[in-house]
Amino acid sequence: MNLLRDLPPSGAGEVVERLAGGDAVRIERIVSRGEASPAGFWYDQDESEWVLLVAGAARLRFEDEAEARMLGPGDCVHIAAHRRHRVDWTDPERPTVWLAIFHTDAEMDQNGPVEKSASRTARST
Amino acid sequence: MNLLRDLPPSGAGEVVERLAGGDAVRIERIVSRGEASPAGFWYDQDESEWVLLVAGAARLRFEDEAEARMLGPGDCVHIAAHRRHRVDWTDPERPTVWLAIFHTDAEMDQNGPVEKSASRTARST
Repeated sequence: MNLLRDLPPSGAGEVVERLAGGDAVRIERIVSRGEASPAGFWYDQDESEWVLLVAGAARLRFEDEAEARMLGPGDCVHIAAHRRHRVDWTDPERPTVWLAIFHTDAEMDQNGPVEKSASRTARST
Repeated sequence: MNLLRDLPPSGAGEVVERLAGGDAVRIERIVSRGEASPAGFWYDQDESEWVLLVAGAARLRFEDEAEARMLGPGDCVHIAAHRRHRVDWTDPERPTVWLAIFHTDAEMDQNGPVEKSASRTARST
């Protein structure tokens, strides 16, 4: 599977695909094509969500922040459970591909990176 | 945080950064610069791993498959716990950025996508 290929057709609206998931974690690809959260709508999720913008562009707004965050490829955000947020905008000119990891891990760190280490098994070739 | 920026310096070898994690799930960025698994080495992990190649190129080999898989940006693979695998090659000419999600979810699907649905909260603008 390639997250950037086999995109849903442009007329399909925003499409969510569950890529993998079990009891503790669920991995989804979300493809947006200009969609945004309805006016006045805030997500208020029981699960925490770690989200990566893989391609495209979006504006993510937290209720507890004055300014929306502009996201581009590679940007990632941890959204704690019940932290109210909305998608103000996604690029209407091209697909915006999100990778979302939903989990119920209350111990999840909210900001990264928290730890850095050299790999112990790799070697230079 | 942006997965494609603030990369470790090229002389640092392969660097693993824990971005977030709790009891059930751990999210890591791994930046490789030509590293590969040592000859004869196979990863045999207690945890399952879902991995996305964000940038660069790599060859991932499973012991139970005849051919290595060539991975490019957007490619993702679910690696079940104890499925023996190794990294045969990463591109020495540019950084290879992996996003790895380790989890202990035995119910995790091994192949995706398994479910597709239209978003219920988004609207076209």
